[in-house]
Amino acid sequence: MKLLEERILRDGECRPGDVLKVDSFLNHQIDVNLLCEIGREFERLFHEAGVTKILTVEASGIGVACITAQFFGVPVVFAKKSKTSNIANDVYSAKVDSYTHGVTNTVVVSKQYLHPEDRVLIVDDFLAKGQALLGLSEIVRQAGAQIVGAGIVIEKAYQGGGDLLREQGVRVESLARIASLDPEKGITFM
Amino acid sequence: MKLLEERILRDGECRPGDVLKVDSFLNHQIDVNLLCEIGREFERLFHEAGVTKILTVEASGIGVACITAQFFGVPVVFAKKSKTSNIANDVYSAKVDSYTHGVTNTVVVSKQYLHPEDRVLIVDDFLAKGQALLGLSEIVRQAGAQIVGAGIVIEKAYQGGGDLLREQGVRVESLARIASLDPEKGITFM
Repeated sequence: MKLLEERILRDGECRPGDVLKVDSFLNHQIDVNLLCEIGREFERLFHEAGVTKILTVEASGIGVACITAQFFGVPVVFAKKSKTSNIANDVYSAKVDSYTHGVTNTVVVSKQYLHPEDRVLIVDDFLAKGQALLGLSEIVRQAGAQIVGAGIVIEKAYQGGGDLLREQGVRVESLARIASLDPEKGITFM
Repeated sequence: MKLLEERILRDGECRPGDVLKVDSFLNHQIDVNLLCEIGREFERLFHEAGVTKILTVEASGIGVACITAQFFGVPVVFAKKSKTSNIANDVYSAKVDSYTHGVTNTVVVSKQYLHPEDRVLIVDDFLAKGQALLGLSEIVRQAGAQIVGAGIVIEKAYQGGGDLLREQGVRVESLARIASLDPEKGITFM
């Protein structure tokens, strides 16, 4: 998506430690007009998929999921990060290693909000090693629901998470796919 | 807001310990159509306020903030919960006691995203004792910006947080104001 790539080049910052900082428009300050264009594009890509629910994980996925859900006319469900390892039996749960924060979270979704007849589009702001996406996929599988695909704003393609998911048969659509990230040389796209 | 009150009566659950559970439409599963009506109402209420930014706090405030921001045509900034007590000098920060979780969080906003010329509408899903709102107000004050008001989806009016803020001169507009909450007798509105 050209508009998004241009925005990343203009306002994204490469930081040491393989960090792409897009705080100014995606995950601290949020440019809602840009999210609208992103949501519209996800709807175009998954128009025929019969989506019944958008699934994301707190916190920074929630904005893009809500704006996207407007174009599909379906509810959002966001997985919650659980601080306890005691998981209640009324939730689906999965473990997620956070690449950015170096911790493992358990994410949970109440069994009330995902059902076997659901056709789920997973939406998230970032895809790197794919841990969040794998966790969300696991939750959808526990519910016996169908994953119709994943709509990702920015994929760090060189980290392999997207391809891991694609090899598992998940349709992953990323609106910007980063080929390399270097504080000196800048950002290149696939 | 009649639509919201009806929804709370239909789908809200009173739980022991003074908990109003609105997980099915507001803060786990999200009814985006309802959020649209909420956002439209906030825009009607604060139409003349010259809002330049919507400020909320992660996680469950982000959805309502993003949908609301569409009606104002302004960016969202969400305060992040910081796990460390070492606060960097490039952020504004405030301490927030969480009524629900019994912990104190520090919430931070990068200095890049709030400026003295900003006219800030604070948006959140819940207002009880007012701790989150006080923390966000403190951050706006640190930035030297103007708080034009707070748009709240559900205020537990009997817990006093709303009135505390109103006494400080903040215009607080809550779309549903709960007068009492009782697992036996149900929910009553102001």
